[in-house]
Amino acid sequence: MKASQFLISTLKEAPADAEVVSHRLMTRAGMIKKLGAGIYTYMPMGLRVIRKVEAIVREEMNRAGAIECTMPVVQPAELWQETGRFEKMGPELLRIKDRHERDFIVQPTSEEVVTDIARQEFRSYKQLPRNLYQIQTKFRDERRPRFGLMRGREFIMKDAYSFDRDAASAKASYERMAQAYRRIFDRFGLRYRAVAADSGAIGGDLSEEFQVIAATGEDAIVYCPDSDYAANLEKAEALAPRSDRPAACAALVRTPTPGKSTCPDVAQLLGVPLATTVKSIVLATDRLDGAGQVAGTQIWLLLLRGDHDMNEVKVAKLPGLDAGFRFATAPEIVEHFGAKPGYLGPVGLKRPVQVVADRDVAVMADWICGANEEDFHLTGVNWGRDLPEPAVVADIRNVIEGDPSPDGKGPLAIERGIEVGHVFYLGTKYSRAMNATFLDEAGKPQFMEMGCYGIGITRLPAAAIEQNHDERGIIWPDAIAPFTVVICPIGMDRSAAVREAAETLHDRLAASGVDVLLDDRGERPGAMFADWELIGVPHRVVISDRGLGEGQLEYQHRRDSAATKVAASGIVDFLQNRLKP
Amino acid sequence: MKASQFLISTLKEAPADAEVVSHRLMTRAGMIKKLGAGIYTYMPMGLRVIRKVEAIVREEMNRAGAIECTMPVVQPAELWQETGRFEKMGPELLRIKDRHERDFIVQPTSEEVVTDIARQEFRSYKQLPRNLYQIQTKFRDERRPRFGLMRGREFIMKDAYSFDRDAASAKASYERMAQAYRRIFDRFGLRYRAVAADSGAIGGDLSEEFQVIAATGEDAIVYCPDSDYAANLEKAEALAPRSDRPAACAALVRTPTPGKSTCPDVAQLLGVPLATTVKSIVLATDRLDGAGQVAGTQIWLLLLRGDHDMNEVKVAKLPGLDAGFRFATAPEIVEHFGAKPGYLGPVGLKRPVQVVADRDVAVMADWICGANEEDFHLTGVNWGRDLPEPAVVADIRNVIEGDPSPDGKGPLAIERGIEVGHVFYLGTKYSRAMNATFLDEAGKPQFMEMGCYGIGITRLPAAAIEQNHDERGIIWPDAIAPFTVVICPIGMDRSAAVREAAETLHDRLAASGVDVLLDDRGERPGAMFADWELIGVPHRVVISDRGLGEGQLEYQHRRDSAATKVAASGIVDFLQNRLKP
Repeated sequence: MKASQFLISTLKEAPADAEVVSHRLMTRAGMIKKLGAGIYTYMPMGLRVIRKVEAIVREEMNRAGAIECTMPVVQPAELWQETGRFEKMGPELLRIKDRHERDFIVQPTSEEVVTDIARQEFRSYKQLPRNLYQIQTKFRDERRPRFGLMRGREFIMKDAYSFDRDAASAKASYERMAQAYRRIFDRFGLRYRAVAADSGAIGGDLSEEFQVIAATGEDAIVYCPDSDYAANLEKAEALAPRSDRPAACAALVRTPTPGKSTCPDVAQLLGVPLATTVKSIVLATDRLDGAGQVAGTQIWLLLLRGDHDMNEVKVAKLPGLDAGFRFATAPEIVEHFGAKPGYLGPVGLKRPVQVVADRDVAVMADWICGANEEDFHLTGVNWGRDLPEPAVVADIRNVIEGDPSPDGKGPLAIERGIEVGHVFYLGTKYSRAMNATFLDEAGKPQFMEMGCYGIGITRLPAAAIEQNHDERGIIWPDAIAPFTVVICPIGMDRSAAVREAAETLHDRLAASGVDVLLDDRGERPGAMFADWELIGVPHRVVISDRGLGEGQLEYQHRRDSAATKVAASGIVDFLQNRLKP
Repeated sequence: MKASQFLISTLKEAPADAEVVSHRLMTRAGMIKKLGAGIYTYMPMGLRVIRKVEAIVREEMNRAGAIECTMPVVQPAELWQETGRFEKMGPELLRIKDRHERDFIVQPTSEEVVTDIARQEFRSYKQLPRNLYQIQTKFRDERRPRFGLMRGREFIMKDAYSFDRDAASAKASYERMAQAYRRIFDRFGLRYRAVAADSGAIGGDLSEEFQVIAATGEDAIVYCPDSDYAANLEKAEALAPRSDRPAACAALVRTPTPGKSTCPDVAQLLGVPLATTVKSIVLATDRLDGAGQVAGTQIWLLLLRGDHDMNEVKVAKLPGLDAGFRFATAPEIVEHFGAKPGYLGPVGLKRPVQVVADRDVAVMADWICGANEEDFHLTGVNWGRDLPEPAVVADIRNVIEGDPSPDGKGPLAIERGIEVGHVFYLGTKYSRAMNATFLDEAGKPQFMEMGCYGIGITRLPAAAIEQNHDERGIIWPDAIAPFTVVICPIGMDRSAAVREAAETLHDRLAASGVDVLLDDRGERPGAMFADWELIGVPHRVVISDRGLGEGQLEYQHRRDSAATKVAASGIVDFLQNRLKP
């Protein structure tokens, strides 16, 4: 490819709304162009990256036995009504009426359509297992689209769906996909982690996220440097403390803490460690009558150590809270505690409140909490002596750095990640809702066991950039670079020797299958180098009259701080060596 | 590829709503699956065909210097409001409101978006010419979607857009695309014609349709077997008659024709050739006042020979009718002619009517038309004698078989075609509407000259089938077959020799780049052959114990009536010879 036949369009300045580096660099490198909020044209330079991502994903999906099809972008609402998602999903589901006022949606994902195909196609156990996938445009009407391709509204996703005759087979299908994902992410050349994720109502451990490691990632990833353990923060278990509760030493004291409504403020005022304080979080659950009216409300008090944060996913699994909960309103709090938030605690409750103590709180002695009186806290609080033992003790917190790993292998570490893939065992959730059955050996209908597997095709390049960039621009891994090698001739318009050397090298590399671009635009060296450093092509060869006079070219990897002289005669071998995976 | 790892799903019966053979066969062959009216999933077998179509198109577009990008499916209405198409387009434009009640559309095409890109990117004459294209999902909310992929609502289109500095350069870009299209359609292995099409308001001859020839096609294609002339019916000129008008011979007679309200009925009743009758078509044009109210109406009488049909495209170009016209209402007709339709004519008009005679009518003598009186016609009508010479004489009819070719090379023939591609010179229509300018050498802003170029990627396979099928199923050209070769082993489960021969042949062909499928499903020969004849794989090799005993395999092309025995040792060479383009 020659630059003069391609569209290279770099910008000095990033758009004002570009908050993250990948958005800034993809825009400046001319890879994407904004059309509307969260809606981008994939410009030629960006599309090359996307196509490389797609090709790797397609190859590995096919290798793993998945079969490609393409489902419609615009889908009739009927199927989505069968599963109830047409009503249940919020405004992120883009709803349309056609010319006949019939309801349609723009696909955010395709469980309904693929399950409809499966129930028509897979009638016998002999036809299972099957895995269908597509690489296709999706739309989610995000409330606040941002970060360029990272959280767009329109995007490209690879979504695969497996259908199996039983749970054991479904889990084997799941494992095959999880392995394919590892191969895919290995091939991308990115640092990533496969982390256990919460599998919601389905239960079990069969849900993993593939997170590209990046300091700017939105997700917290928990891992054990001494073992294979890795999970997302939602999922990671905080082990029960190994030590027993110490004996009570201090007396219960009502202590003035004027204006100090947070644990850190109280700890600072009293000169004690934050870990001796307990924070109170008040939730509510509503009981509905037959007509859907609220017939009664239960108030819950969750107790967490002052240096810990609540984990909503864990809380949502507790009996009594697993059908949905909300934060209590200010009037409800005052009614039950007699005080406003910031000064609440579990001691001396007059109204019935369900107390849930985090496992770490349950082993504390001599702790500090709100006195249920404005501007006062209690110190020296002790379970059993000052208040009843907690009715429920559970893991309801996020782990923190240094917590013991659930596999017992050492302290946990936390880093940031960007979710680019997810494998998920679905069980019979969709097949039951849509009556997708097959006949087993006995001729009896059985629900299909399903799994679903996504990769954010257009998010991946953004994640790759968040991980691989410097102040000059993008640094692509070879596998997904828009071009692998760029040839920068200096003075090509003046020097026949340079032109000939550049074109010969271009043709030889192209003939041997290298994805090479010859920059024949005639830009000056500074501007030309700046462009390619911004665009992030990993391998650069500079050809100049001076170099050719010495029989040499200059090679520089995008990560190198200086160029290497290479004999002109050996450049193809040299590059092919560098390009070996 | 092995059949057991693929999804093969054939049906004995076609769906009741499948009116055309391609729809029936694509559904029965498991290539498409209907999700809603005009909305289909491309199943694995069908997607393979679509991908081959895409690959050929992409290769030739790149070869012609076009650059691929991908524009969004969901597009903000603003750009469509700039050109006025958001309002002007009918309900086939699928309109959406997002969660913030902002207007969007699902792209039916992308002139607005690409022109928006061009006006941002191409600021200088040095950056032109450029051609950007995409292969992307489109949606048109057809009033009556039908014929499967032939007239779907959601479909895949390749749309390219060229930007040039002046008309001469734009025409060169147009020609480059027209040539690329010829290469593309040649490579598909289909019989097709590139026909001149009407270029609407732009004028000139720079619009061609690429029509796949098929008896079931919706379009009529006019061509001259003795020359290169080809045009669609809308465009093809009916030459002015070479002969002068004969002298009047007959007297004008008011002739009773009770109940005979059509030219054929009248000709039959009177025992005269249909070509001696003249049909009257009454149109109306409304003049609007400043407030958009109808301030006046002009009635038009179009006269065509009884065996000719009106050509609305030609009519719409006549002065006075070129701003839009409608058919006159029944009251308007009665008011101006004193009679109802079926008995109208140009003789003895009492109210002002603008008469337009087709060129063939203008040279008629002793003709027959309605008497403006129910159940009566006039015979022996003659221009000048019985009524004034026509105010306007023009070509307003469709050509018919046998008409002289406009290039003077012989009589015209007509066949049916399916439009699968269109190249179109747009001029500055969109660049003016959207103020897409570049700076010329003098630093002066100039509007870009544009062209647009479409190929119906998902319609193409349907057109290929309309042209290439028999009673047993589809007959794919090699270039776009889902598989090029199918290996059908007989008794593979019983015979190790058959299995080994089949697998060896599969592996050898696959290794040499042949797109081969081994049918290892274990179906019985009859069912297996029926499947592949339905699916339409062009080359079949049958391997059996009996044949292997003689050192032979059986080869049969899908069009062959019988198999050919081929030495097992020479089968790969044999096939590669057959597969040469």
